[in-house]
Amino acid sequence: MAEIKCIGILTSGGDAPGMNAAIRAVTRTAIYNGFEVKGIMRGYKGLITNEIIPFKTQNVSNIIQQGGTILKTARCMEFMTPEGRKLAYENMTAQGIDALVVIGGDGSLSGARIFASEYNFPIVGMPGTIDNDLFGTDTTIGYDTALNTIMEAVDKIRDTASSHERLFFIEVMGREAGFLALNGAIASGAEAAIIPEIATEVDQLSELIGNGFRKSKNSSIVLVAESELTGGATGLAERVKNEFPQYDVRVTILGHIQRGGSPSASDRILASRMGEASINALLEGQRNVMIGIQNDELVYIPFSKAIKNQKPINRDLLNTIKILSI
Amino acid sequence: MAEIKCIGILTSGGDAPGMNAAIRAVTRTAIYNGFEVKGIMRGYKGLITNEIIPFKTQNVSNIIQQGGTILKTARCMEFMTPEGRKLAYENMTAQGIDALVVIGGDGSLSGARIFASEYNFPIVGMPGTIDNDLFGTDTTIGYDTALNTIMEAVDKIRDTASSHERLFFIEVMGREAGFLALNGAIASGAEAAIIPEIATEVDQLSELIGNGFRKSKNSSIVLVAESELTGGATGLAERVKNEFPQYDVRVTILGHIQRGGSPSASDRILASRMGEASINALLEGQRNVMIGIQNDELVYIPFSKAIKNQKPINRDLLNTIKILSI
Amino acid sequence: MAEIKCIGILTSGGDAPGMNAAIRAVTRTAIYNGFEVKGIMRGYKGLITNEIIPFKTQNVSNIIQQGGTILKTARCMEFMTPEGRKLAYENMTAQGIDALVVIGGDGSLSGARIFASEYNFPIVGMPGTIDNDLFGTDTTIGYDTALNTIMEAVDKIRDTASSHERLFFIEVMGREAGFLALNGAIASGAEAAIIPEIATEVDQLSELIGNGFRKSKNSSIVLVAESELTGGATGLAERVKNEFPQYDVRVTILGHIQRGGSPSASDRILASRMGEASINALLEGQRNVMIGIQNDELVYIPFSKAIKNQKPINRDLLNTIKILSI
Amino acid sequence: MAEIKCIGILTSGGDAPGMNAAIRAVTRTAIYNGFEVKGIMRGYKGLITNEIIPFKTQNVSNIIQQGGTILKTARCMEFMTPEGRKLAYENMTAQGIDALVVIGGDGSLSGARIFASEYNFPIVGMPGTIDNDLFGTDTTIGYDTALNTIMEAVDKIRDTASSHERLFFIEVMGREAGFLALNGAIASGAEAAIIPEIATEVDQLSELIGNGFRKSKNSSIVLVAESELTGGATGLAERVKNEFPQYDVRVTILGHIQRGGSPSASDRILASRMGEASINALLEGQRNVMIGIQNDELVYIPFSKAIKNQKPINRDLLNTIKILSI
Repeated sequence: MAEIKCIGILTSGGDAPGMNAAIRAVTRTAIYNGFEVKGIMRGYKGLITNEIIPFKTQNVSNIIQQGGTILKTARCMEFMTPEGRKLAYENMTAQGIDALVVIGGDGSLSGARIFASEYNFPIVGMPGTIDNDLFGTDTTIGYDTALNTIMEAVDKIRDTASSHERLFFIEVMGREAGFLALNGAIASGAEAAIIPEIATEVDQLSELIGNGFRKSKNSSIVLVAESELTGGATGLAERVKNEFPQYDVRVTILGHIQRGGSPSASDRILASRMGEASINALLEGQRNVMIGIQNDELVYIPFSKAIKNQKPINRDLLNTIKILSI
Repeated sequence: MAEIKCIGILTSGGDAPGMNAAIRAVTRTAIYNGFEVKGIMRGYKGLITNEIIPFKTQNVSNIIQQGGTILKTARCMEFMTPEGRKLAYENMTAQGIDALVVIGGDGSLSGARIFASEYNFPIVGMPGTIDNDLFGTDTTIGYDTALNTIMEAVDKIRDTASSHERLFFIEVMGREAGFLALNGAIASGAEAAIIPEIATEVDQLSELIGNGFRKSKNSSIVLVAESELTGGATGLAERVKNEFPQYDVRVTILGHIQRGGSPSASDRILASRMGEASINALLEGQRNVMIGIQNDELVYIPFSKAIKNQKPINRDLLNTIKILSI
Repeated sequence: MAEIKCIGILTSGGDAPGMNAAIRAVTRTAIYNGFEVKGIMRGYKGLITNEIIPFKTQNVSNIIQQGGTILKTARCMEFMTPEGRKLAYENMTAQGIDALVVIGGDGSLSGARIFASEYNFPIVGMPGTIDNDLFGTDTTIGYDTALNTIMEAVDKIRDTASSHERLFFIEVMGREAGFLALNGAIASGAEAAIIPEIATEVDQLSELIGNGFRKSKNSSIVLVAESELTGGATGLAERVKNEFPQYDVRVTILGHIQRGGSPSASDRILASRMGEASINALLEGQRNVMIGIQNDELVYIPFSKAIKNQKPINRDLLNTIKILSI
Repeated sequence: MAEIKCIGILTSGGDAPGMNAAIRAVTRTAIYNGFEVKGIMRGYKGLITNEIIPFKTQNVSNIIQQGGTILKTARCMEFMTPEGRKLAYENMTAQGIDALVVIGGDGSLSGARIFASEYNFPIVGMPGTIDNDLFGTDTTIGYDTALNTIMEAVDKIRDTASSHERLFFIEVMGREAGFLALNGAIASGAEAAIIPEIATEVDQLSELIGNGFRKSKNSSIVLVAESELTGGATGLAERVKNEFPQYDVRVTILGHIQRGGSPSASDRILASRMGEASINALLEGQRNVMIGIQNDELVYIPFSKAIKNQKPINRDLLNTIKILSI
């Protein structure tokens, strides 16, 4: 295996708070270990359009606290084609990049896996997504911040005056995973979470209302994952209007505010440790692994495992929500 | 005029951050001056249902920093009828209340005005609304906090990655007044504000896009007041899809988070000073006035002026937004 | 063993954000399971002065987001004496309390252990302390919030203008444990952490400055645990003035702001789950254990282990700080 | 008078939140009006060391929300000498700069005034200081943010548990002006503010304690301006230990966190409007004026008035604090 001299770094997919802390950690650990570093703009797109910038330690000064990603991110169709990946490979080698660190979610790591196997190119991945839906790691970069953002929004909604039988549906992100809705509901003291994981098993809305819920309270807050399986906040509001017209329903869609904001302490620490670990992994000859954290220990997860498996949700927490909102 | 011995206090209409700071100030200034104080629950409704509680200085401890209102608020249909107001008057006199402080918006102060004239009852009003739409006062309790809440949400949205020609419509409150949209846009560095005040004069959307706006930038943020006149964020998004399909539109509806949250320093100071002033007004024999602030001086505005006139918006700021987002 | 009917709950020692979320969870889970609940004011002191209040589900409404503890907390000398504990026991039995949930740090759980063994009284403990220094649990209630508070303060200090060779010492809590200083330094991108754990092994200040630190940067931020072993921020500033007079030193002492604030999502979730677990523990016949969390699983730790052992700090992180601040 | 083609901009003195919003507004309004813009680093120092950078509209993208100043700031001794100012003038003219916008406090505007008169150079000033101590403007850029920072810190301290007769002294900035202490005390519901303005008239500490203060409460919070006249928090704590040993005193020194942080909505709007106004002033042929805001109108204040006069504090607010903390 050829020696690595220059490491490229990119962020891909939906952006997540803590990506900048990760970029900083990767860059500085690489430089500390004698590598050259190049920043690739707009995810895989920058590989194709050759938007690649030499990175010094100053390039990552004063970014640990910033939301978003200084490298930008974009979805890239071309990289899904063999021709696109060939062009990416040619640009990278022309730039002298001989290893890659990719920060992103499930789709981004899938792309990395295909590319790595086609070109035998050393890649290390880092889980950067607010959805927390990657198998092999207890938590992902951005998840904790998004959870706090949701909680603070619900705190504000709870402040407002209550009137009888008012039902607030607050839609949060999580197309295929209910982590944000479930844990967001516990953190904010909401009355229920409606999540995709159990959508095919239970009619969560009927159960919620049919149980004679909230007899003793004046208004209720329900967090809804924005999945087709749940119906989303708007879909549920429609159903309530038709099936349970006695309730006064309000909808808030938090939307992109969940992707932004200065990262929490926990996300910055995670991103910093994972960033350092990604360079250590390359130094140890690891390739095509995602850095994970399990029981506070950094681990290497083969791409094939990180992306193929479904990360299970803790269903006991649904019961916790029910008990704590009596 | 009979001497005042016991002052009732209520919050009414949509709640606003700083109402608790106002309640604290009214209560403590009243007690300091030897008055008895009674808290009336759920706005005018509590007068009708006789939900009235004796208030000591401890009742308002540790509330200055809390959003919402400990007295709750509700819309009250009965108080709009002569029978309802009669019942309210009877309950108040039975409780020994001989003056009233009302904290709320335009509708709440209208109710106060009618009641005061019917029963010759001493009432002082305080402008509590996030909309800042009351004539006679430079600013209203809750407006500054809501402005900061909006700004922080937009900051988070701006963090997220940019792609070409993406247009974010962020809907903020302000059914009849564009203060939040206009000043929120300046504070957050947004590219435009779409407000009801000029909706009948200009097609703001066409102007925004037709001007070849944002040629040099990748994505744009527009704040939209939630008025029928503006079409709201959802209405505008529909129009863009039909008329300017080259744009990728995203909608966020901030909703009730704008009414909540711990009040800002400015709102707490305003509420504290106005609360003190409301008792001073009663001591001076003032009746049926709203406390206002003009050029940092506390003033008394007759109810008839506070509610009848339209507060003008500073149109120069539309130009400021345009210049500062080049 | 007699059946438990009524559970007392108290918070003790230095207060920590999330204690209210814990009180809410204990109270509601207990009521859900048919227990009576009594709130004991001011920690062990309330047992001696008999300040004990019946708790219903409404008593813990709308507190999950509040810092501090609605039960108050105090240090209590009398409870350290056999006579004090006898009085506490008599008051508790007179009130019908036949089990106790104690939320607090090392000292508070020590008191619980002694009392439990003297009177064969069922007690379950919960780790509530910002210091994170309790063995047997990965994290303690309040630690994550304090870490975020520290980080936000350092973010603000980093904003301010830099001049040559300025050295900021920021003192954080942690009399015997460097968790807050160490992880706070990583989260805030500080240049160093000075912690008690290695104070007897290394002269951390000499190492920091002697290493020719920060040659390339204009100003540096160092987090210092407030321990006698570290010298504290003020002590270190004195040493710098004498030994390295070329540096311009500034000191900030964060003090009690670290104990306050609305709890983070992570702390609220931890407190909620631990609160539920404390009642489950009593239902399962567990006594004299602290609820801990290990690898995201709730566990029972005998009091003797929870309080006697020193929780080790991850020393690798000192190296991480050094690498990431190049 | 020669036509202006190129405008230099600098920030000077202690930095203040909102300076970046001001830089953005000055830069974009200048470019909008056809001027060239140059950013001068580290205040007047950059004029002497010739650290001057061409500024395009992109240079000020995405900075409105950032604390600190991207132009940095420093105190500059050389600029206080005729030789230093001569060098500054030569560098500026060599760079083609023919007008200057200076953002800073009293000292910075004094420097501007001297320079302007010596070299007949067009300068417009903007009041950037958290202390709010500039005559001629109702408020200064950074003041509102600092007030909110102080309030949030006090909110956290108030959260922590109360024990009998504990007295918290919280030191805030304001060497010669008590605006932050006075209004910070109202905003945070503190029991008193100790300010330099009345230090020579009254022994504020004796009055506070001698009045039998806080008989009914368990702990008290007092904000202290960090002036020699007040004694500062540490000085007052010493006095209490000697004169009133029954009190348990705690000291928190907020320090540099007051200068940092993302600017509030109010500060961003003020900075944006003033920045626009500074270019308008130059366009109108105004020279050697500070932009002020009075009654929400932008005004021009001659340098001689802006810096020479003492801005009076509203003494009635001392009484408000006393009444509201009963």
